[in-house]
Amino acid sequence: MPKAAPSFGLILPPKDPGEPSYRWLYAALRLEILQGRLLPGARLPSTRDLAAQYGLARGTVVNAFEQLKSEGYIDGSLGSGTYVGKILPESLLQVAYRDIAKPAAERAAQTRRPATLSDYGRRAKLFRNYENRPTRAFRANLPALDLFPVALWTKITQRSLGRISTHQLMGGDPLGYLALRQAVAEYLKSRGVSCQPQQVMIVSGVQQALDLTARLLVNPGDRVCVENPGYSGAVQVFQALGAKIVAAGIDDQGISIRRLPSKAVRLIYVTPGHQFPLGTTMSLARRLALLEWARKSGAVIFEDDYDGEFRYAGRPIPALQGLDTSGAVIYAGSFSKVLFPSLRLGYLVIPSHLLPHFEAIQSLTCRHAPLLEQLALTAFINEGHFGRHLRHMRQVYAERLSVLLEETRRRLAGLLEIRGVEAGLQTVGWLQDGLAAEAAALAAAKRNVQVTPLARVSQGSALPGRAFPGGAGLEALQLGFAAVEAKEIRRGVRELAIALEGERKASA
Amino acid sequence: MPKAAPSFGLILPPKDPGEPSYRWLYAALRLEILQGRLLPGARLPSTRDLAAQYGLARGTVVNAFEQLKSEGYIDGSLGSGTYVGKILPESLLQVAYRDIAKPAAERAAQTRRPATLSDYGRRAKLFRNYENRPTRAFRANLPALDLFPVALWTKITQRSLGRISTHQLMGGDPLGYLALRQAVAEYLKSRGVSCQPQQVMIVSGVQQALDLTARLLVNPGDRVCVENPGYSGAVQVFQALGAKIVAAGIDDQGISIRRLPSKAVRLIYVTPGHQFPLGTTMSLARRLALLEWARKSGAVIFEDDYDGEFRYAGRPIPALQGLDTSGAVIYAGSFSKVLFPSLRLGYLVIPSHLLPHFEAIQSLTCRHAPLLEQLALTAFINEGHFGRHLRHMRQVYAERLSVLLEETRRRLAGLLEIRGVEAGLQTVGWLQDGLAAEAAALAAAKRNVQVTPLARVSQGSALPGRAFPGGAGLEALQLGFAAVEAKEIRRGVRELAIALEGERKASA
Repeated sequence: MPKAAPSFGLILPPKDPGEPSYRWLYAALRLEILQGRLLPGARLPSTRDLAAQYGLARGTVVNAFEQLKSEGYIDGSLGSGTYVGKILPESLLQVAYRDIAKPAAERAAQTRRPATLSDYGRRAKLFRNYENRPTRAFRANLPALDLFPVALWTKITQRSLGRISTHQLMGGDPLGYLALRQAVAEYLKSRGVSCQPQQVMIVSGVQQALDLTARLLVNPGDRVCVENPGYSGAVQVFQALGAKIVAAGIDDQGISIRRLPSKAVRLIYVTPGHQFPLGTTMSLARRLALLEWARKSGAVIFEDDYDGEFRYAGRPIPALQGLDTSGAVIYAGSFSKVLFPSLRLGYLVIPSHLLPHFEAIQSLTCRHAPLLEQLALTAFINEGHFGRHLRHMRQVYAERLSVLLEETRRRLAGLLEIRGVEAGLQTVGWLQDGLAAEAAALAAAKRNVQVTPLARVSQGSALPGRAFPGGAGLEALQLGFAAVEAKEIRRGVRELAIALEGERKASA
Repeated sequence: MPKAAPSFGLILPPKDPGEPSYRWLYAALRLEILQGRLLPGARLPSTRDLAAQYGLARGTVVNAFEQLKSEGYIDGSLGSGTYVGKILPESLLQVAYRDIAKPAAERAAQTRRPATLSDYGRRAKLFRNYENRPTRAFRANLPALDLFPVALWTKITQRSLGRISTHQLMGGDPLGYLALRQAVAEYLKSRGVSCQPQQVMIVSGVQQALDLTARLLVNPGDRVCVENPGYSGAVQVFQALGAKIVAAGIDDQGISIRRLPSKAVRLIYVTPGHQFPLGTTMSLARRLALLEWARKSGAVIFEDDYDGEFRYAGRPIPALQGLDTSGAVIYAGSFSKVLFPSLRLGYLVIPSHLLPHFEAIQSLTCRHAPLLEQLALTAFINEGHFGRHLRHMRQVYAERLSVLLEETRRRLAGLLEIRGVEAGLQTVGWLQDGLAAEAAALAAAKRNVQVTPLARVSQGSALPGRAFPGGAGLEALQLGFAAVEAKEIRRGVRELAIALEGERKASA
């Protein structure tokens, strides 16, 4: 029979069901040491005594001691006695570790003085774009995801993975998978983009494209021009980098050149194909004037062709990039609107002289886009599925748009007006008769209709030099139609009519 | 019969095989206008005449005219005559567009004065990490990709895609897919990381983790501490941001605390689990001293546990993060070394007070990591495949390591010495007898053996305050063993022995 062990006073907390016994004992002993209840130099009971005292298997105690030893908490060897190590600074024991016994959740919530953020860190604000709600009238900026051929995509993904080489598992080129860059360059011909595959860089989407471009070109305090109203995701990137934002209004030709500074502009962000959010297509004359202005002012033009694939009337207007002969245009597009947003793939077309810099920044900040998606997308494009899906979606969206236009004419006359729509996944409804956008959106929401006041999607009055054509203000609503089925569009218009009628009566 | 049309003098270039005829004619006419050979106000031939003159179908000409009209190059309507538009500024016609006829490749190569880069853009240098070559002895920093269960991964990917919801196609949380964050938090318990799933953020890998962290915390001119020798991918990120780099040497306990500045440090980058590239495991005493120093100096600690999964002797040392009670440690890991690098998935464990800032910066810079990989990885972990693969790889790498150690003892005695190796995918061979690392690597390369001088992987002398223990210099080679089969390891050692023998004789 073992003799009675000297009382040791270790408190063993309740054990987690899945936790190995030795880890449990180890953690309890470690805590005693870190909290100074077992002092440096103190002798521990023998493994045999400890096992007996706490009803543990001896192997459990041996393993716990081994672990503590390997981490430097205790010294000594079996047989010659085991001692608490003399390695812990006194100050630590008293100051920092008194809280280690608190539950992890509680400890995690604790903060010393919060870390000091960089200037960028203080300026960077959450860009709320993701909305995990069922699609209803008139959700904007979203394609009809229920029509995406998931089964086909699965088959192609499976095949791409089946053929993946060990080299491809290793990593990839910062600029992207060459075959995809070739496929993108070929595809972009139809959009009037003039480029070599080498100039195409694969990115995670327009958001990353904006960030990389702005980091590469813009110092804090530098001027960046944007459209007003315009895409707030871009403005937030520039603001976070400390750029001086200069906003110029939109007229029926596109961005108003006359108001732009004539020099020392680093970057201008434009949406010539389908102005976000107004929907204007930039005229040829304005495109040429913009290029001429860029030449003089030194600005690089960032052309965001975010939904250039969807045009329902007329033929697509070739990209600004294709008119440029001076290497002043960076062209960006994404697969979020044609395929699906959580794919996170897009592309940049970059003037040759800037390519090495984009390659460097990509290698430093994320290495490259994931390869599997790039392989699958390459096959999807090259086998013609991309073109087919795009044509199908164009047809579906054109039908949905015509339902929206017809219903709006029938039921919303005098309340809301939609002007010429030629492209995109959403359009703008201009409120009539003095109706206010915020109140209208609220009234619509009560009838389960989602419409966003234009001022909210566009930084509106937050920008200096708020310049809106004709003094009309932004009493308008963004109306998405691409992701909304015809039946739901009809319901949406009916409900919106009731909501707006109510608003008109209330304000009369 | 039509009467003879007036000669028009349009030069039609050769047509691309796949190009629709109307696009071809459109492009030629557009060029005439942009280059000023067709002047504003000039009348175009009728579609009938043009068709007859160039042997085209009339529909082709009508379509080309429609396109030009929709873009604003020409005015007028069928019947009343068609004229070149008066919209093009004279200066443009003469200055910018003279080169539009050159082939795209040539034009792309042209640059006006190159765009001015930001300070960051000028400092950002390509980080060469990707190497698309067959694996041979002694390729470092790479797992055994040929043993990755691609078929299983394919099956799980396929299943994940089959179950994907429309919501999941829409996009995701900037911090990552919650179920994956839960699985990672659970997994990290075994590495001594103490965290809630909410503190886990999914990133594309350690490279992105470094960039996000440094952007959030470091202004140009701020002090950032690094290990010397250390991971150059980290140093390059900090240098690009304009940080003042302070390098501290490594002794047998880990980074040398005594040399660190006592205040005003924003960030310190360490590899406590397995120092890169020396392989040292930071002792408990040093870990506690480092935390204490961070508390005083105000530094945030970035703990890069880049290959903490692979430990062959002793038990894993718990992460520094798990010892921290003050929210001073950001812990980073990646799936590149356990799964495969081109997956581009990793994670950060973030102190609660910094979480909203990481969420904001992720939303602004790339929105979120692609969802499909996150779904597949979640299933791979939760179904136990991850643990199984990891255990299998640990066993394989341990065997390969023992072959390397045994062969080295047998054949490289007096030439190269490998000290205690407990972890990782590579180790360090210390050259003996005055052999120089650069010359040794060159001689080895001639015998098809890949060894990298330690100074090259570690910024070595490029850093100020080069402090290397014992004045030994960096005459050492990095030797990878995980990705190299036993037979190839044996060949590598044999060849390296011949190469080093030769070097010794040459320098004697």
